[in-house]
Amino acid sequence: MKQIEHIGIAVNDLATSVPLFETLLQTTCYKTEIVQSEQVATAFFACGNSKIELLQSLNDDGIIAKFIAKRGEGMHHIAFLVDDIYAEINRLKAEGFAFINEEPKIGADNKLICFLRPKETNGVLIELCQENNNKLDDKN
Amino acid sequence: MKQIEHIGIAVNDLATSVPLFETLLQTTCYKTEIVQSEQVATAFFACGNSKIELLQSLNDDGIIAKFIAKRGEGMHHIAFLVDDIYAEINRLKAEGFAFINEEPKIGADNKLICFLRPKETNGVLIELCQENNNKLDDKN
Repeated sequence: MKQIEHIGIAVNDLATSVPLFETLLQTTCYKTEIVQSEQVATAFFACGNSKIELLQSLNDDGIIAKFIAKRGEGMHHIAFLVDDIYAEINRLKAEGFAFINEEPKIGADNKLICFLRPKETNGVLIELCQENNNKLDDKN
Repeated sequence: MKQIEHIGIAVNDLATSVPLFETLLQTTCYKTEIVQSEQVATAFFACGNSKIELLQSLNDDGIIAKFIAKRGEGMHHIAFLVDDIYAEINRLKAEGFAFINEEPKIGADNKLICFLRPKETNGVLIELCQENNNKLDDKN
């Protein structure tokens, strides 16, 4: 894991949370993006060489909506940047970790992403992410 | 906020979680430290220019023990590095944020730390931290 790429935070409403985090972090939200595959609207803030990603569900039964219904707004996941997501998946599987999605998919910010199952990671939802250089096309 | 200084993760038992995170992050735990004021044992891992901090409660009614009893193991807080914690506290108070402890205290890793109240930060427990240069002595 090269670095913390971002921290994902589940919120009810980007309209109120974006200005709140702009004030908190003293930086402007530099991008918003809809990720249809995850049914979320996202908003990004730079912080050093990492990012804060706010996540709002696009519907009432999405992953983020369910998370908030159960636990309230708050930290949702940690994303680690890796050089080779396929190699990292293989390494972690060999070590006994399990994945929610073993096959990387395209997430926000043009990244290849996959999530480890929190059961093996002390309850922490961990995302691996890599810059997308059309590797999906090469591998599939 | 200059950067994400660390992510705090609440765990039941460092004895099992330290080797787990060493495998996960592919790095050796570089420091363990007891923080009596918080009643926690901590373990640190470097990740880029940030850190992962595991937190185990030293007793059954400590903050971390209560957190785990309520929500299970998992992400507990985000710590942001700041240049001047006193200036940042004043700025954030003026913006309407509230603090669990307005007066910085000495936390793990020889830092001056304070925590914002999650009620105003979308449920995220946020720590501000600054390298401790004996500023407590200067200010008190």
